[in-house]
Amino acid sequence: MSPELDSLIQHFAKLPGFGPRSARRVVLRLMQNPEARMVPLADAMLAAARAVKLCEICNNLDAQPVCGICADPGRDRQSICVVETVGDLWALERARAHSGLYHVLGATLSPIAGTGPADLRLDRLARRLTPETELILALSATVDGAATAHYVAETVAATGARITRPAQGVPIGGALEILDDGTLAAALRARR
Amino acid sequence: MSPELDSLIQHFAKLPGFGPRSARRVVLRLMQNPEARMVPLADAMLAAARAVKLCEICNNLDAQPVCGICADPGRDRQSICVVETVGDLWALERARAHSGLYHVLGATLSPIAGTGPADLRLDRLARRLTPETELILALSATVDGAATAHYVAETVAATGARITRPAQGVPIGGALEILDDGTLAAALRARR
Repeated sequence: MSPELDSLIQHFAKLPGFGPRSARRVVLRLMQNPEARMVPLADAMLAAARAVKLCEICNNLDAQPVCGICADPGRDRQSICVVETVGDLWALERARAHSGLYHVLGATLSPIAGTGPADLRLDRLARRLTPETELILALSATVDGAATAHYVAETVAATGARITRPAQGVPIGGALEILDDGTLAAALRARR
Repeated sequence: MSPELDSLIQHFAKLPGFGPRSARRVVLRLMQNPEARMVPLADAMLAAARAVKLCEICNNLDAQPVCGICADPGRDRQSICVVETVGDLWALERARAHSGLYHVLGATLSPIAGTGPADLRLDRLARRLTPETELILALSATVDGAATAHYVAETVAATGARITRPAQGVPIGGALEILDDGTLAAALRARR
């Protein structure tokens, strides 16, 4: 096999959900028509890598310095939902479960993954909060998620913001991102 | 979601084995570190798209005009194995099942897929054959594969090449009871 194809297959094999077999299959499909399939995908990747950054308010991914959600005057500014990843944010948006703003931590506290408080993008959260703000801690219902929620709540306690969590209804051990829309919406409605 | 990310997810969702969910997962992973993950993958794709072409003898994919297999003086030039795809060629090479050369058709005859004789890359095959050549028709054991093998055999009949096919039977490690009736009957008929 040519080194170009070998290298490309090895790149694909490192992606989540991929192994050598699925990587070969994707590369062969793309090589069936490189100009129509491979080049447009590579160009879309380079465009995203160049343009998309973290929102300077909430850490969402967007091509604007302030993301579309933070810039939307129709969103409820007194309700901020803390999530671990942009994937969690997308899941809540697809479920139309939240009409306020977000704050994306980028990680959870996890002794096993080796992530500590310094890995959470928390520094700008407190200044977004007032005693009128509701802060919804929508973190995964795992030990790490619970520890992270506790840490976030402590960190912003001085702001006086009201802190809520999604109802139990999120299955224990489940990650937010893989939940169906109905469960997500119900859990958020029943927050306490 | 920014249009750059939306477009990228839609590109990935079109790949074999992908849906919207796995496409989102891959894009988020790549965006965790665009410079270290996204850009190198895009560059590898562009390098492959630019360099890799069809071998001018056998239609294998390679960065050289004549592929590494056709150029290898150690391969048996009197044994040519006809396969549908480069993926089939790779599978035979991984199994070290064939020490000769190849000829990649690129398609099978399929009324359902709308592929006819003009879609087979057959025009250069006949001139590669002599009465001393063994032509192994290693096509899928499907109706389309059998029709294609028949068509290839007819097309090259005038060359006098000896035409063979892989044996059909019980896969190594395969339990008899899970085989389909057609395979079982064929395996028993071809008993030795």
